[in-house]
Amino acid sequence: MTKVIMGASMSLDGYIAGPNESGFDHLFAWHNNGEVEIPAAHEQWTFRPGRASEPVVREYLQVGAIVCGRRLFDLTQGWGGHHPLGAPVFVVTHNVPTDWPHPDAPFTFVTDGVESAVRQAQKAAGDSYVSIAAGNVGRQALEAGLVDEVRVELVPVFLGGGTRFADDIAGAPVALGNPRVIEGDRVTHLQYPVIPQS
Amino acid sequence: MTKVIMGASMSLDGYIAGPNESGFDHLFAWHNNGEVEIPAAHEQWTFRPGRASEPVVREYLQVGAIVCGRRLFDLTQGWGGHHPLGAPVFVVTHNVPTDWPHPDAPFTFVTDGVESAVRQAQKAAGDSYVSIAAGNVGRQALEAGLVDEVRVELVPVFLGGGTRFADDIAGAPVALGNPRVIEGDRVTHLQYPVIPQS
Repeated sequence: MTKVIMGASMSLDGYIAGPNESGFDHLFAWHNNGEVEIPAAHEQWTFRPGRASEPVVREYLQVGAIVCGRRLFDLTQGWGGHHPLGAPVFVVTHNVPTDWPHPDAPFTFVTDGVESAVRQAQKAAGDSYVSIAAGNVGRQALEAGLVDEVRVELVPVFLGGGTRFADDIAGAPVALGNPRVIEGDRVTHLQYPVIPQS
Repeated sequence: MTKVIMGASMSLDGYIAGPNESGFDHLFAWHNNGEVEIPAAHEQWTFRPGRASEPVVREYLQVGAIVCGRRLFDLTQGWGGHHPLGAPVFVVTHNVPTDWPHPDAPFTFVTDGVESAVRQAQKAAGDSYVSIAAGNVGRQALEAGLVDEVRVELVPVFLGGGTRFADDIAGAPVALGNPRVIEGDRVTHLQYPVIPQS
């Protein structure tokens, strides 16, 4: 089965966005604070991580399909129709936008829930993996047992408020396995296997 | 100046205690899931961490003085008058307990705030360091610029609610330095230097 990874860059106090959508300069500093130039899928984006984070970024770029919520889609204005990782995007939403200016872009609006979005993404991902953003949609996927791995790109900053990585998870406590750890500059990459619930 | 370290065991979703004071079996599993037997300061406690976490526990036991809030003091019933790390404890509180059954134990109730408690603890700590619990008191110390290092013992569990490591920090974003990382079993030890604010 196609692997599903839930992840995000997160502050030490557990936020994936600061108050009023701030803090991204801190959260994503590691994308561009190094010497390894890695072109993204579209010419308007380039990553320049440090050597330690290079394999993490290269694996990002191999993603087969992406699931996100409407909040992230709106916040990024749908990445202008070009997700920087170059994969098809499945947007979980109650209301399909009527003014989306990129109808030919590989974006699918899914109105029947997170599980449907994950299943569609798995089909689209081919031999690769599905990435699901943390936050509300990621939490729902985790609760539904759809997530195989949780990846936290832990950034050494307190943001003091904002949007949480995963709040009020149903069925908690939820224990994960020990992480694989990669020490980058302005980020500690933590990759936790989800322990299947029997 | 005597070093001040703010720390706690924390879940991946940022809690140092779960809902209704639950989750401690997860948060402190690493204290006793290994093969290295380390007697605590009082015979009623023993640590048994894995090899990777051994130096962390040994350094715990070298603490010179401890600052905590009234919540932790009440929750542990003042550790029965014997803190497992064997150091004097400075409890920040608005109301000195009138029924404390261990008046000769090295516990001091500080009613004039966190800064006073930290200064008193620094005097008591001698050549060693001061440990301050995360949560409300730790956050206040961090905000006041009294903390030199933040230590997160990051546990692979989502607790879904409870008491946060540090919530609503004033002056955020607060960036820390890159951490020293020690990979234990059921814990990732992360030791972040605080960057002095100019």
